[in-house]
Amino acid sequence: MTSSSQSSARHRVVVIGSGFGGLFSTQRLKKADVDVTLIARTTHHLFQPLLYQVATGILSEGEIAPATREVLHRQDNAKVLLGDVQRIDLEARTVTHSAVGRETVTPYDSLIVAAGAGQSYFGNDEFARHAPGMKSIDDALELRGRIFGSFELAELASTPAEIERLMTFVVVGAGPTGVEMAGQIAELAHRTLRRDFRRIDPAKARVVLLDAAPQVLGSFGEKLGDRAERRLDTMGVEVRLGAKVVGVDSTGIDVELGDGTRERIESVCKVWAAGVSASPLGRQLAEQSGAGIDRAGRVEVQDDLTLPGHPEVFVVGDMMALKGLPGVAQVAIQGGRYAADQIRRRLEGKPPKGPFEYFDKGSMATISRFSAVASVGKAQFSGFIAWVMWLAVHLVYIIGFKHRVTTLLHWAISFLGRGRAERVVTQQQVFARTAIQDLGADFKPELPRLAKDREPRVASD
Amino acid sequence: MTSSSQSSARHRVVVIGSGFGGLFSTQRLKKADVDVTLIARTTHHLFQPLLYQVATGILSEGEIAPATREVLHRQDNAKVLLGDVQRIDLEARTVTHSAVGRETVTPYDSLIVAAGAGQSYFGNDEFARHAPGMKSIDDALELRGRIFGSFELAELASTPAEIERLMTFVVVGAGPTGVEMAGQIAELAHRTLRRDFRRIDPAKARVVLLDAAPQVLGSFGEKLGDRAERRLDTMGVEVRLGAKVVGVDSTGIDVELGDGTRERIESVCKVWAAGVSASPLGRQLAEQSGAGIDRAGRVEVQDDLTLPGHPEVFVVGDMMALKGLPGVAQVAIQGGRYAADQIRRRLEGKPPKGPFEYFDKGSMATISRFSAVASVGKAQFSGFIAWVMWLAVHLVYIIGFKHRVTTLLHWAISFLGRGRAERVVTQQQVFARTAIQDLGADFKPELPRLAKDREPRVASD
Repeated sequence: MTSSSQSSARHRVVVIGSGFGGLFSTQRLKKADVDVTLIARTTHHLFQPLLYQVATGILSEGEIAPATREVLHRQDNAKVLLGDVQRIDLEARTVTHSAVGRETVTPYDSLIVAAGAGQSYFGNDEFARHAPGMKSIDDALELRGRIFGSFELAELASTPAEIERLMTFVVVGAGPTGVEMAGQIAELAHRTLRRDFRRIDPAKARVVLLDAAPQVLGSFGEKLGDRAERRLDTMGVEVRLGAKVVGVDSTGIDVELGDGTRERIESVCKVWAAGVSASPLGRQLAEQSGAGIDRAGRVEVQDDLTLPGHPEVFVVGDMMALKGLPGVAQVAIQGGRYAADQIRRRLEGKPPKGPFEYFDKGSMATISRFSAVASVGKAQFSGFIAWVMWLAVHLVYIIGFKHRVTTLLHWAISFLGRGRAERVVTQQQVFARTAIQDLGADFKPELPRLAKDREPRVASD
Repeated sequence: MTSSSQSSARHRVVVIGSGFGGLFSTQRLKKADVDVTLIARTTHHLFQPLLYQVATGILSEGEIAPATREVLHRQDNAKVLLGDVQRIDLEARTVTHSAVGRETVTPYDSLIVAAGAGQSYFGNDEFARHAPGMKSIDDALELRGRIFGSFELAELASTPAEIERLMTFVVVGAGPTGVEMAGQIAELAHRTLRRDFRRIDPAKARVVLLDAAPQVLGSFGEKLGDRAERRLDTMGVEVRLGAKVVGVDSTGIDVELGDGTRERIESVCKVWAAGVSASPLGRQLAEQSGAGIDRAGRVEVQDDLTLPGHPEVFVVGDMMALKGLPGVAQVAIQGGRYAADQIRRRLEGKPPKGPFEYFDKGSMATISRFSAVASVGKAQFSGFIAWVMWLAVHLVYIIGFKHRVTTLLHWAISFLGRGRAERVVTQQQVFARTAIQDLGADFKPELPRLAKDREPRVASD
């Protein structure tokens, strides 16, 4: 175990997580007189709203996941460390984290915890094996393999039942991720792959979107939910509402309908987009501070996003429970920036800001090309206009954030500049086990789980 | 075991492999009155000359590896099957192949074997574990993880010796792949990552290029070899010639120098770009036909690329031994087209072409941005002009072959057209083990090796 030394006596801010909350709080501290250490389990920031496009083959990993240290490379007061945080000690004000078995203890003066959430299987963690979630690049690549692989195996299959099972795709959860995923699998099958096979007809693939709730896109209101459902129906997606998943195995999924009857859907490729559960670090924080914790494992914070009795510790984003705010990017971004501003004001001797106020910029979900739903304040949009809004918002992100749009530009960047477009390293690859296992006494073989024995990550473990 | 039925009585051509030889022979048969079945272990064609750019983060997998069935989707007489070929029976004229444990027997009237070559460790297969090769997308992603991961771990390391070991990169083999790889790692360290770390200075990374031969780029002649070596030297790459690798382990590599002395280089990240060994299918063909086989496992074919006594069986590309032709893309492309033409001429009752003549279009290797060496006929080029030639040739490939250059175009393709830019599925992902393992009696769990227990593929196994 090593202790990271600090070269200055400046105020030390530790940020846990490289998602929206962690990255935006770090950036907001650029001009503050502090040393920031961002500790994260992956080497990339992830633009999670486009993860479904990686899973369905539209975008590469690099296009939605820039290297965190590249994003921050001009911010001299910020240091990035690869590490999985095991313990936070509120008393000692330290964070203990490890990478390939090496433990490091990093002290802090202020702490921003933005470790996000993992997939939740509502107590049925055994489902994870058969229905990966949609939370990480690894998940997306795993699903890309399963989706395209299903068609490959169907082309080789010999019985109609087997072909049907391989060409039935079930998406659990009709929130934005589930709706976008189901829509994209349908487009993939019905359009992209139309001419690619000789024995099977991909256009006959069945895509089922399940939810226990009575409505698609519950958070968008009834009107947009109905619009989305109709559009999905037009695309050939079977929407099954009021259907609770009671079993998932390798060849199918069992649901219980509203009237108590059970039904089995034979399907090899299942996607779980149903629920989230906050990082287990939330429980540690709650236990040590006496803060409450909700069913999803989120920490009940004060109205300034701090832990009770610990004004130096902020919890933001998907880990935070406050006034029922949803687990979306904007809540994390605004929370991260708020926390950074509070730290800076304190150091500068300014009075703190008032309670955190979330400004809802609206939400949107694409259903297919040319069709989306969007809700901005009281205004609601659907169809082509909403899709153009979606495209504009995401183009601005892709261009503005990553400074690169094209393969030619990737090349220009690599040859004329210094950047690299594709620096994503998945968990499967992070210094592959074969390279590490016997690095000698210096490194203990306590690795992130790698691909073969990798189960989709379950938040509660 | 199932037998694939043929719906027509047309001449059946089976092609093994989706590399240059397999893909170009299939395409050449587009207008022939035949049924073509292309059987390959991966779902993509791989533009291997740019693999080092995937490993070093310049390009995404999708950009150099289009889905084979997408490339062929308008060729109605071609069918693509995912499968690892186990046996070729020259007597029965059948090919036995399997995918996720399911065996299929496909009969042929003509056979084109283009299964390529794997990495060769010259009898030291244990090296593979510590020094992955550069033959597949999986290799490239594994190396991407190791290269970037080394810098991440160095940033966390506590002793100078450990940092040095993590920041020393050894590339074995000074052919085009090794030279390009070493050059790119050096550019990555010295340029791309320059500002990304706080504790280590990536510019101090050491890149060593080893070869037992006395010259860099042996096949390019002495003049270009010297130029390349000088350029590498300018870039800070240590070129060590006449150095034979005698040991590779997790923390270093042992070499024997020309004078018999031994030296150890401490290095965590090693790349093996030294030798190739033809697909083990070559041995099967040789045993059954009585053809000779060379040290690299390549089959000695007749001058019309057929097996002795088997005019219906062609061996092309890296598996073929003929007049010392090298294992390069153009030999495979021209050989594949020649075989296709011969099959077509036979069916059309035309006299066969004369012996296969290789037309050498020249060869090139980039060393760094703006610097390459190229040899075209008797003309030799180096420096910027050679680099512009390299760029032109590869741009034409990327644009002409994949019909897509930019992320925006990827989007346009997905939204306006039907294509997907990123359909690569790595071996790690091909229907992940967790999804397959217990699919029931229908599928036996005989899988391609997946990531955790995955050793870099060794050709001789």
